[in-house]
Amino acid sequence: MRKFLSYFILLLFPAWLFAQSEETLRIRTIRQQRENIWLQEYIRFLSIPNIAVDKNGLHRNAAFIMQMMQQRNIQRVQLLSDGNAATTPAIYGEVIVPGATQTLIFYAHYDGQPVDSSQWARGLKPFVPRLVKGSLEQGAAITAFPSGAGKYDPDWRIYARGASDDKAGIMAILNGYEAVKRAGLPLSYNIKFFFEGEEEAGSPNLGGIFDKNRELLRSDLWVICDGPVHQSGKKAILFGARGDAHVDITLYGATRPLHSGHYGNWAPNPGLMLAKLLASMKDEKGRVTIRGFYDDVIPLTEQEKKALRDMPPVGNQLKEELHFVGEEMPGVDLGEAIMLPSLNINGMQSGNTGAKASNVIPTTATAVLDLRMVPGNDYKKQQDRVINHIREQGYYITEEEPTDAERAIFSRIARVKKSGGYNAQRTPMDLPVVQNVIEAVKSTTTDKVVLIPTMGGSLPLFLFENYLKAKTITVPVANHDNNQHAENENIRIRNLWNGIETMAAIMTVLPGS
Amino acid sequence: MRKFLSYFILLLFPAWLFAQSEETLRIRTIRQQRENIWLQEYIRFLSIPNIAVDKNGLHRNAAFIMQMMQQRNIQRVQLLSDGNAATTPAIYGEVIVPGATQTLIFYAHYDGQPVDSSQWARGLKPFVPRLVKGSLEQGAAITAFPSGAGKYDPDWRIYARGASDDKAGIMAILNGYEAVKRAGLPLSYNIKFFFEGEEEAGSPNLGGIFDKNRELLRSDLWVICDGPVHQSGKKAILFGARGDAHVDITLYGATRPLHSGHYGNWAPNPGLMLAKLLASMKDEKGRVTIRGFYDDVIPLTEQEKKALRDMPPVGNQLKEELHFVGEEMPGVDLGEAIMLPSLNINGMQSGNTGAKASNVIPTTATAVLDLRMVPGNDYKKQQDRVINHIREQGYYITEEEPTDAERAIFSRIARVKKSGGYNAQRTPMDLPVVQNVIEAVKSTTTDKVVLIPTMGGSLPLFLFENYLKAKTITVPVANHDNNQHAENENIRIRNLWNGIETMAAIMTVLPGS
Repeated sequence: MRKFLSYFILLLFPAWLFAQSEETLRIRTIRQQRENIWLQEYIRFLSIPNIAVDKNGLHRNAAFIMQMMQQRNIQRVQLLSDGNAATTPAIYGEVIVPGATQTLIFYAHYDGQPVDSSQWARGLKPFVPRLVKGSLEQGAAITAFPSGAGKYDPDWRIYARGASDDKAGIMAILNGYEAVKRAGLPLSYNIKFFFEGEEEAGSPNLGGIFDKNRELLRSDLWVICDGPVHQSGKKAILFGARGDAHVDITLYGATRPLHSGHYGNWAPNPGLMLAKLLASMKDEKGRVTIRGFYDDVIPLTEQEKKALRDMPPVGNQLKEELHFVGEEMPGVDLGEAIMLPSLNINGMQSGNTGAKASNVIPTTATAVLDLRMVPGNDYKKQQDRVINHIREQGYYITEEEPTDAERAIFSRIARVKKSGGYNAQRTPMDLPVVQNVIEAVKSTTTDKVVLIPTMGGSLPLFLFENYLKAKTITVPVANHDNNQHAENENIRIRNLWNGIETMAAIMTVLPGS
Repeated sequence: MRKFLSYFILLLFPAWLFAQSEETLRIRTIRQQRENIWLQEYIRFLSIPNIAVDKNGLHRNAAFIMQMMQQRNIQRVQLLSDGNAATTPAIYGEVIVPGATQTLIFYAHYDGQPVDSSQWARGLKPFVPRLVKGSLEQGAAITAFPSGAGKYDPDWRIYARGASDDKAGIMAILNGYEAVKRAGLPLSYNIKFFFEGEEEAGSPNLGGIFDKNRELLRSDLWVICDGPVHQSGKKAILFGARGDAHVDITLYGATRPLHSGHYGNWAPNPGLMLAKLLASMKDEKGRVTIRGFYDDVIPLTEQEKKALRDMPPVGNQLKEELHFVGEEMPGVDLGEAIMLPSLNINGMQSGNTGAKASNVIPTTATAVLDLRMVPGNDYKKQQDRVINHIREQGYYITEEEPTDAERAIFSRIARVKKSGGYNAQRTPMDLPVVQNVIEAVKSTTTDKVVLIPTMGGSLPLFLFENYLKAKTITVPVANHDNNQHAENENIRIRNLWNGIETMAAIMTVLPGS
């Protein structure tokens, strides 16, 4: 009777609820056997400092990774460089599968963001990994690492720099591969591995490394394992990223700070000028008013629009978490907002505030604007549009500190600095190899998989396209509240386990298999 | 023949060109004899540190002043206190003149602004007075103090903290008095002296000192000797000062810094909110748009309007000096601008700029607003008008850090902090005792004397009115480019000599005398 009822329910529910595959269950069994060994190895890995200023630490990380790869019988393990001794090398390895016609290359990075130990809570240290029985911010207790398998509550977290960004990616990829081998499952592709060591420094030499190792890195698709899963907690695949560029603006008043009583409202106040200038850049609905700002956007395809509609709404959850109620574009959801090019004030300053404030008219006012690009936008064109808008507000534009001669002519002077950026990148969802990956990820979960046409943040994916003509998609692992780039970085253990199953499935599952 | 020509020219020129009185020329002769002695004494005076944190230094200054007063036979020299041992005392002295029916009391202060020695140019130290052959900023050379009278070029300057603000006031008052006595000129009033020791700390105990010494301080007029003469270099008399108050504003976004890529243009940006809010406070003509802001202003009298028209225009000179071309209120001259209540951004900040900038949406944005009041304005009412304007822009107003409950209700939250202020003060120009002082100052110079109904800056003149029902006018001494409150503070020696003549004339000249 119970069995009959089960079959009946099976008929009523949509297929995806039952998509967890046989393969995934076999991978899970291996993981349950191995989790204590893997976590002990992971803790050793997280104990090695991985910040840019510590070259020795980065080299020790690279050596540790190469050892992990060799222990897993990955072939041709080697350092890849651009030929410059100062470049922190990437690490390469491969597994060639007889009869495979396609190649996937898995990417993660082993360097972490700079870190200020003093900002970490409750005496935590960035390179002394600690186990916490949940989220530290929500008051969970720090506990000792247990010994023996199966003792880890999957909602516990490990706190350390790099725990989520992006050693978690390396952990998921290498153990995903190990699980596939231990489970005796067949690989569906040739598998390559590429672990970068300069991502958090802005990948300054990645193009050079690609250039020198073009043949070795040939593939049908790069699977980028970096960043957080969807805020809903569901697995996500991202098909691109917004581009990024900056414009710094400085406006000028008198050459020395003036007494705001003796000269107030006579001498120009650059703080007020900056306020008016920035205010002119967006309307009351949060839309950028700069001429042409939205002009070049390539519209989403029908498939991408559907993906957008299918994204679980997270606005209310996030607003509760972040304690605000009004979006900048009222009524526009997060998923929709990040499909648009954006303009954001990262910082602005004029004079001093708080205890340092004094009764002066400041001499300058500065703002740093962050521009994000979507497919169709050219970042240089967007920067120029911003500058043109400043010019249209009556400003004389210069890239240098204004001279006395310029100051004697122009009542409004804006010094602008464009910092190098890059464009957005997006991989079509309907490529067969991409479809395979989507199916593979779906096979690991009873939840919907969230398909995100473009992530809000930026990655230098253009390097892959420019140097290798390669396609990329991003399959993240970390929890969204991982404090990436900040103090108290952490990974929820469940996300590591899910990541291993995801990576294993991508390596083994072909559509219909 | 030459004599005849001279008489002819005399007939052609307006009378004020020849207004330098016999008395002034006698004072000048005394000064020429005494200048070396007075400057040596002044250098000793400037060598005693006079900053608020150095109580011992302030007491040494007080003792030095008392000694100078006693050496000049000033009577009843004493310290005045509010009864609190922690208060830095004021210094009092008097000269009672048989038959005099009126009393003038001369005010200056002996404490100086805080100072950062490391910011002083070319190895100058704030309490090691040095002689410079002109303006240091314009490249003049440092030179040794000469010995012997008449060796000082009057365009040379002495650099030291307090050299202009306001030991120059004490120097001019005491030596003005000494010169009167040495010249054998009659005093027209009883003369009192009052030297404050806490002016740069905001005169926190001045009211208390007034309160305890009401009888001693009875007078017909206070002559405040502080601040710079007119920017044209001409002597000035100021009949009042604007009032001053502040409003600090903080606006809020999410409770943690968000990645400006992942959340940009979705989460609210408090920097942009602040820009829009500040921009809404002034129109394109630099006029404050806050409702009622100009409503309570008492119009200038005909005499004050005439004084304003007669003020030498200094806009072009100052704009050249300060290297800007556009006034905040286009076409409105400095003199006119400071007759209005004002609103100024002293400082604003959101996130970071420059090397510290990062790709975040800041959590807060802060501005410090400086309000100046003219007669008729009530500072509390002006502060409330600003706050009401913020409310009218849709903000919920709080004086505390907003709670999660408030954040869950209001999309716009402004935390405001009103800092204590005070109102403007203005003494009528047509009071007979004031007219006497104007005539006296005119008698010392062949230039026009600039009559300024209200100075742009603020002084707590309301204390004199509230505690003593006293009238005040301000007769400054220092050059306008004295770097008051900043590094490299200096006094031009000519201004000391002129100041001595001015003070002497005020003590001796009655209209028609």
